[in-house]
Amino acid sequence: MTDTTAAGKSYAMNPQHSALLTDLYQLTMLQGYFEQGMDETAVFEFFVRKLPEKRGFLIAAGLEQALQFLERLRFTGEELEWLAASGRFPDKAFIDHLAQLRFTGDVHAMPEGTIFFPNEPIIRVTAPIPQAQLVESRLINLLHFQTLIASKAVRCVLCAPDKLLVDFGLRRSHGAEAGLLAARAGYLAGFAGSATVLAEPLFGIPVFGTMAHSFVQAHDDESASFEHFAHAQPDNVVLLIDTYDTEAGAHKVVQLAPRLHERGIRIKAVRLDSGDLADHARKVRRILDEGGLGDTGIFSSGSLDEYELRKLLRAGAPIDGFGIGTHLDTSADAPYLDCAYKLVEYAGRARRKRSEQKATWPGRKQVYRHYDDKGLIGGDTLTLEDDTQDGQALIQAVMRGGQRLGPAEPLSDARRRVQENLKQLPPHLRALETEPAYPVTVAPALHRLAEQVDRALLHD
Amino acid sequence: MTDTTAAGKSYAMNPQHSALLTDLYQLTMLQGYFEQGMDETAVFEFFVRKLPEKRGFLIAAGLEQALQFLERLRFTGEELEWLAASGRFPDKAFIDHLAQLRFTGDVHAMPEGTIFFPNEPIIRVTAPIPQAQLVESRLINLLHFQTLIASKAVRCVLCAPDKLLVDFGLRRSHGAEAGLLAARAGYLAGFAGSATVLAEPLFGIPVFGTMAHSFVQAHDDESASFEHFAHAQPDNVVLLIDTYDTEAGAHKVVQLAPRLHERGIRIKAVRLDSGDLADHARKVRRILDEGGLGDTGIFSSGSLDEYELRKLLRAGAPIDGFGIGTHLDTSADAPYLDCAYKLVEYAGRARRKRSEQKATWPGRKQVYRHYDDKGLIGGDTLTLEDDTQDGQALIQAVMRGGQRLGPAEPLSDARRRVQENLKQLPPHLRALETEPAYPVTVAPALHRLAEQVDRALLHD
Repeated sequence: MTDTTAAGKSYAMNPQHSALLTDLYQLTMLQGYFEQGMDETAVFEFFVRKLPEKRGFLIAAGLEQALQFLERLRFTGEELEWLAASGRFPDKAFIDHLAQLRFTGDVHAMPEGTIFFPNEPIIRVTAPIPQAQLVESRLINLLHFQTLIASKAVRCVLCAPDKLLVDFGLRRSHGAEAGLLAARAGYLAGFAGSATVLAEPLFGIPVFGTMAHSFVQAHDDESASFEHFAHAQPDNVVLLIDTYDTEAGAHKVVQLAPRLHERGIRIKAVRLDSGDLADHARKVRRILDEGGLGDTGIFSSGSLDEYELRKLLRAGAPIDGFGIGTHLDTSADAPYLDCAYKLVEYAGRARRKRSEQKATWPGRKQVYRHYDDKGLIGGDTLTLEDDTQDGQALIQAVMRGGQRLGPAEPLSDARRRVQENLKQLPPHLRALETEPAYPVTVAPALHRLAEQVDRALLHD
Repeated sequence: MTDTTAAGKSYAMNPQHSALLTDLYQLTMLQGYFEQGMDETAVFEFFVRKLPEKRGFLIAAGLEQALQFLERLRFTGEELEWLAASGRFPDKAFIDHLAQLRFTGDVHAMPEGTIFFPNEPIIRVTAPIPQAQLVESRLINLLHFQTLIASKAVRCVLCAPDKLLVDFGLRRSHGAEAGLLAARAGYLAGFAGSATVLAEPLFGIPVFGTMAHSFVQAHDDESASFEHFAHAQPDNVVLLIDTYDTEAGAHKVVQLAPRLHERGIRIKAVRLDSGDLADHARKVRRILDEGGLGDTGIFSSGSLDEYELRKLLRAGAPIDGFGIGTHLDTSADAPYLDCAYKLVEYAGRARRKRSEQKATWPGRKQVYRHYDDKGLIGGDTLTLEDDTQDGQALIQAVMRGGQRLGPAEPLSDARRRVQENLKQLPPHLRALETEPAYPVTVAPALHRLAEQVDRALLHD
């Protein structure tokens, strides 16, 4: 083992697109498949086993990044050299096999922004087994995270549908990609945008910004800091007023307003970031109103999540917008989903795993959604792809032979789908704590196949 | 707002090193500083406000990536064009100012792997205010995450000091960088390595791998899958035996062993991934021992964390190694730290923020650590840099004028430091639930400065 650590130029490579961003066992299994000549078609499906506590549904997200990953999949010369030199893969023919490897398979999926439930596949990969196997680690990594965050963000949206919600979480998100993809997943779920600048050029997400305490502190005088900021950003004057004393800060804003007004500058909002936000908001609202700043909004931030939003809004806090950071970008109350990417068919035979508490349904599946006469969703049926049912089929072909079937879906379309899906939610599923669970029925055809697979295993 | 979304080539850029991986307010504040000609020296410190529940101490980590980020900081031509075209920064002189911006400041820090406590800065940045301000978002993003994960991983190490611990968390970590940096932070804290392949070329971390259920399922016969895997990886035969029935799988391993032995292949271990691990491990141990495989180890995985490790080891489960994934890579029971990067001095004057529950200590600080006569740590003193005290000074200069003061520290050295630090922990801090809290005393000099800063503010 070398200790290359640190300053090494290697870290400059973009790990997002490295074929080595995978678990070692994928490569050792690929070697096994290669030696045995196993390259028939495998079918894998990604699904969530069960909902985290308090979640009533999930939002499918991450498909776009998953497809980009599949399109770009290849080992670079540098990566192949490293693998050969690692000593783990002495067979040159295997390294050559990896050099040729591209994703040439099919993908079926629920469109991004679709509401889904446990055991329902949101993506199905059909490809020669080495390809379908290799991509497991990164596909899960991409689908899991955005689904996790979109499913958290949508809870804030349901709590505060008429408020401006902005992702503030970059600093405490888990690394660079987490910050960016959390901005994307939050926007998908209905947030107005993000504070993360790079999210705008990368994903077309509106970015928002105010000012930090350090700007105020760097000035010897708080009022001067407000005035300087207003001159620098005359179209976006949002002043942070809690650095020393929130209500005193609000009074300084009122005193400053006429001077700014003379220069045509309007104070769009003030920001509160500490203390009892409902109480401060009420006091600040009164100070602003009495000072003639009735159209200056109140924006607030600081350890917020859907539960805090609900509390503030129930208390009637006069707050117009919220910056939601850490709790969104880490999905703090449920920082992971119990999800899996499992082999359901190989070489034309359905497969299942029977491990305790982790058994999976075999075969290529489809999910049918049923609506009541008000247009609300009333239940799903999980069945085999060829067992056509009534209802709306949620899983669609999106890639064939490694090629997309259409252009990438604009993020705004997926975002609209979330809003349409939310309108179809029955009231109990819109609540932060939901019951009863949404019914997902496993069709008889799927039960029969599972029994058949088990019987075949017993006879092996 | 454009909807560039999706397939766009932009996502191919490496966001890890983009100067736009920051919060918008950093740029708007920079514009304010620029217009006011504010470019005097600012001092910012990064610290954790309080420990998450059940944590008794933290491990400093992420300094190496933070220094790389500072060394490379610059806006590319493409980024500057985008900023200019965004309409937010119409002043061309400001864009030119950004084009020139490099990090030319000083950095003082605790070395990676140092144990630390709330309110103790682990990094101090001293630079012209635009530089020190701009880097805030990404510095926190880098330091927070690795510190979080190292501090979680070390709890597993303390629970199971003699076991092989391997990071298995890539798939459920929050994106690409999280997976890689979690592998690094886990290794730093004492894990043997990671399953994430890319962690080896990037960081020199040993990688480990076994096999997945899909490999077994893709074969019509479980024994055949074991045999094929053993031939493909004769030096690393770890067989996953719970796909259908754990004990039946163990018997198949025993039956297979003589055939492999004839070809000089030893079965290094079996892996259990589901069910009651302690119970299965005991049964499997007996089957292996009775089958003459006394030197075949048992490796286990599946929703493990430090609490599960403790339970399994207290139950005497004969398990030799553990793959720890989701709970490590997301720090599931505490997925974030309450941390901050705060201005403590500007233009030669100490600064502090007084927001409710979020007040900060002003001035450039040092932490002195005191040891008892057994060499155990007994308390720290937080004071001003120039208020020299007895004890070990933990914060050291690592960068001056934008240049490192020495080569990057090998990760193995930082890893050794963790082990040395752990030996100095008093027994109650080694426990998973600790009390009383470790004493961090704020020196009189620091109290005096805080009062002085407050008085000056009142007179403004």
